Amino acid sequence: MKAGDKYYHSIWLDDDDPSVVKVIDQQKLPFLFEIKELRSVEDIFNAIDDMTVRGAPLIGAAAAFGVYFATLEINPATNIHDHLSNAARYLVSCRPTAVNLSWAVDYVMKKTNGEHHSLSTIQDKARKAALEICDKEVDNCMQIGNHGLKLIEEISTRKEGEPVNILTHCNAGWLACIDYGTATAPIYMAHEKGIKVHVWVDETRPRNQGAKLTAWELGQNNVPYTLVADNTGGLLMQKGLVDMVLVGSDRTTRRGDVANKIGTYLKALAARDNKIPFYVALPSTSIDFSIRDGLKEIPVEERNQDEVTHMTGMARGEIQTVRICPEDTRASNYGFDITPARLVSGLITEKGICKASEKDIKEMFSDKLK
Amino acid sequence: MKAGDKYYHSIWLDDDDPSVVKVIDQQKLPFLFEIKELRSVEDIFNAIDDMTVRGAPLIGAAAAFGVYFATLEINPATNIHDHLSNAARYLVSCRPTAVNLSWAVDYVMKKTNGEHHSLSTIQDKARKAALEICDKEVDNCMQIGNHGLKLIEEISTRKEGEPVNILTHCNAGWLACIDYGTATAPIYMAHEKGIKVHVWVDETRPRNQGAKLTAWELGQNNVPYTLVADNTGGLLMQKGLVDMVLVGSDRTTRRGDVANKIGTYLKALAARDNKIPFYVALPSTSIDFSIRDGLKEIPVEERNQDEVTHMTGMARGEIQTVRICPEDTRASNYGFDITPARLVSGLITEKGICKASEKDIKEMFSDKLK
Repeated sequence: MKAGDKYYHSIWLDDDDPSVVKVIDQQKLPFLFEIKELRSVEDIFNAIDDMTVRGAPLIGAAAAFGVYFATLEINPATNIHDHLSNAARYLVSCRPTAVNLSWAVDYVMKKTNGEHHSLSTIQDKARKAALEICDKEVDNCMQIGNHGLKLIEEISTRKEGEPVNILTHCNAGWLACIDYGTATAPIYMAHEKGIKVHVWVDETRPRNQGAKLTAWELGQNNVPYTLVADNTGGLLMQKGLVDMVLVGSDRTTRRGDVANKIGTYLKALAARDNKIPFYVALPSTSIDFSIRDGLKEIPVEERNQDEVTHMTGMARGEIQTVRICPEDTRASNYGFDITPARLVSGLITEKGICKASEKDIKEMFSDKLK
Repeated sequence: MKAGDKYYHSIWLDDDDPSVVKVIDQQKLPFLFEIKELRSVEDIFNAIDDMTVRGAPLIGAAAAFGVYFATLEINPATNIHDHLSNAARYLVSCRPTAVNLSWAVDYVMKKTNGEHHSLSTIQDKARKAALEICDKEVDNCMQIGNHGLKLIEEISTRKEGEPVNILTHCNAGWLACIDYGTATAPIYMAHEKGIKVHVWVDETRPRNQGAKLTAWELGQNNVPYTLVADNTGGLLMQKGLVDMVLVGSDRTTRRGDVANKIGTYLKALAARDNKIPFYVALPSTSIDFSIRDGLKEIPVEERNQDEVTHMTGMARGEIQTVRICPEDTRASNYGFDITPARLVSGLITEKGICKASEKDIKEMFSDKLK
C-alpha cells in the first residue's frame, strides 16, 4: 500500500543483494519512516522480538527469511540439519502466541528437507520458500479483501450510501501483513471502490499499534478515520456509531476461538450486547487446527512491564519515552486475549466467510485437516 | 488518607485565611505533590475545568466553595441574588456528566436563600454549607467503606485468606472524594483490618487517572496493586484473576444505570460474561432521582482531542507531553459511558448495599424522593 508517494510491502528481499531483507521499521512509525536492513538470523530474531516487525503474517514471513538466513550461515564444520533445526527452534521461541511464526518456519524447513541437496540448493529452496510465503500472504489478504468487501457493501446499501463505520483494534493492516492487511483489506477495497467508509481506530494500549500504525497507514491511503481510546468503543456502539467491528487474529482454533491483541474480547462483548456484527479477518495460516479451546490451549504472551508504565511519542522534534505512573509501580502486560467463538459473527478467510464453528471451519478447510 | 508521612483531605479551607481553599493539584500527580490555592469563583471553575480537581464528590465540594467565593465577590452595586445565580450557573456549566456538581451548588444556594440576610450572614452560611458538604462526603465514604467491607470479607473467607483481587477503573479514591474514596473505601478498610487485598488498576485512558492517581494513592497507603492497560481486564477475568470489580459513579439514575468513566461498561460486560460480581460504590449525592434511562438522559461530556493524541508523563526529570499518533490525527474523546443496571450486581451506598433497580433504590432512599 501507499506510504508517501510510493507503494511498499512491509518486508522484501533486496533487489541487488539477496542476502539482505528490508523491512519498514515499525518501532519508529508514525514519527519516522525508516527502512531497516536485516542480514542474519539474529537480526530477524531481534526484529521480531523488539517489534520492528509485528503482526501475525509479517512475523511468519520474517521468520521464513530467518530460516533462509540460517542456510546462509552454515559453515563446513556444522551439521546442516542440526544447524537449521536449532535456528528454527530459536526463531519460533521468539513470540509464543501467533501461530504463523511456527507455521512459516515449518514450511521453509520442509522445503529445505529431502534428499541430499547441495548447500546452494538448500539456500535456493529456502529463499524461494520465504518468497512464496510473502506472495501467498499478499494473495490471502487480497482474497480476504474481496470477501469482506461484500459485507461492507451490504451495510453501505442498507445505509443508502452513508459512511459505514467500522471499528478496528490494534493493527491488522498492510504493515502487519506485507500488503493490504487482513482486517483492513476489505476497508481499502471499499474505499478504492468509492464506498464511503470511516474507521474508528482503537489506540491499542500498551503498544499503541492503533494510534501509531493503523492511524498512519489509513491516513497515508486517505481512508477517513478517528482515533479513540480503547475504552471508547463500548459507548460508540451504545450510541449507534459503529456498524461493524473488524479485527485480525494471531491464532484461531479449529472451533473458532480467536486470540488477538489484548482488548479484542471486550469489543466482542460490546458488539454482542449492541447487536453489532463482529468479524475476524484472517488467512488460514493463522488457524491452528491442532487446538480447540482457545482459553485453555493458546499461550498468552506476557511482555515487559515497561510497555505499560512508559509511553513513547514525539516531543520537541524527537522520539521520547515518558513514565506515566509512580516510579515504583508494578505492572502486568499480557499481549493477547481470547474471544470465544460464540461472540464471533464470522471469519473472513481467503477462501470465503465462514461461521466460527468447528463444523464450518472444517468444511472450508477440509484440505488442511487430516 | 496518607500522602507521604501526613494525612490529607483532597480539599480544605485554609486554617488561617478563610478566603483561601487549598487542593492537591491532581494534574501534577504522581510526578509532583503540590498544593494549589484557589481564591475566586474563576479559580474554582478553572480547577474543575482543567481537572486540577476531579471526581464527582470532589467536584461537588469544590463547586460548593465556588458559591461561597461568589458570596465574597459581591460588591455593593450588584444584586446579590442575580450575582449568585449567575455564579451558580457558571459553575454548573463546567462539566456536564457528574450530578454532584449541580447538587452541591443547589445545596449551598438554598442555604444562602431565605429572608433578607446581611451579606456577612450569607457568606457565613455559604461557607458553612460548603464545609458541611465536605463533612458529609467524608462520612458517606466511611459508610460506603463499612458496607463494602463485608463483600470483601466474604470473598476473603471463601478464599481462605488468599488475597482478594479487585479490579477498579479510573480513580474513585480519596483524591476524588475528599477522604477514603468511594470504590477504594472498602479496599482501604479491608487492608487496615489485615484482610489481604490486591487491586488491578486500570490505567484509564485517555487521562490515566488509574495510572496516575489510583496507583499513587494505593501506593502511598501500602495497598498492593498492579497497573494494567484498560484492555487487560477481560483476560484477567477469563483467567480467574479477578474476584470482584469495584468502581465509582459520576451519575446514577433512579433505576440504577451508571455513568462512570469511559470504559466502565466494557468491564461490566466482561464481569457478567465471567460471572464476577460488579459493584458500584457511590454516595447518594451521585444519584439523579429525576432520570431513569442513563443512555438517553445522561449527557456524556466530550473533551479535547489532545487528551487522546497526546500523553503526559515524566522524562529526564520533567513533566513532558508527547504526541502518540500521526501529526494530523483526528480523535474523539468521550469522557463517560453508561453501564446499564442489568450489568450491576449492586450499589454500595452510604445507607447500605442495594440492587440496581428502581424499586430497591426507591426503598433505600425514600426520603430523597417526592
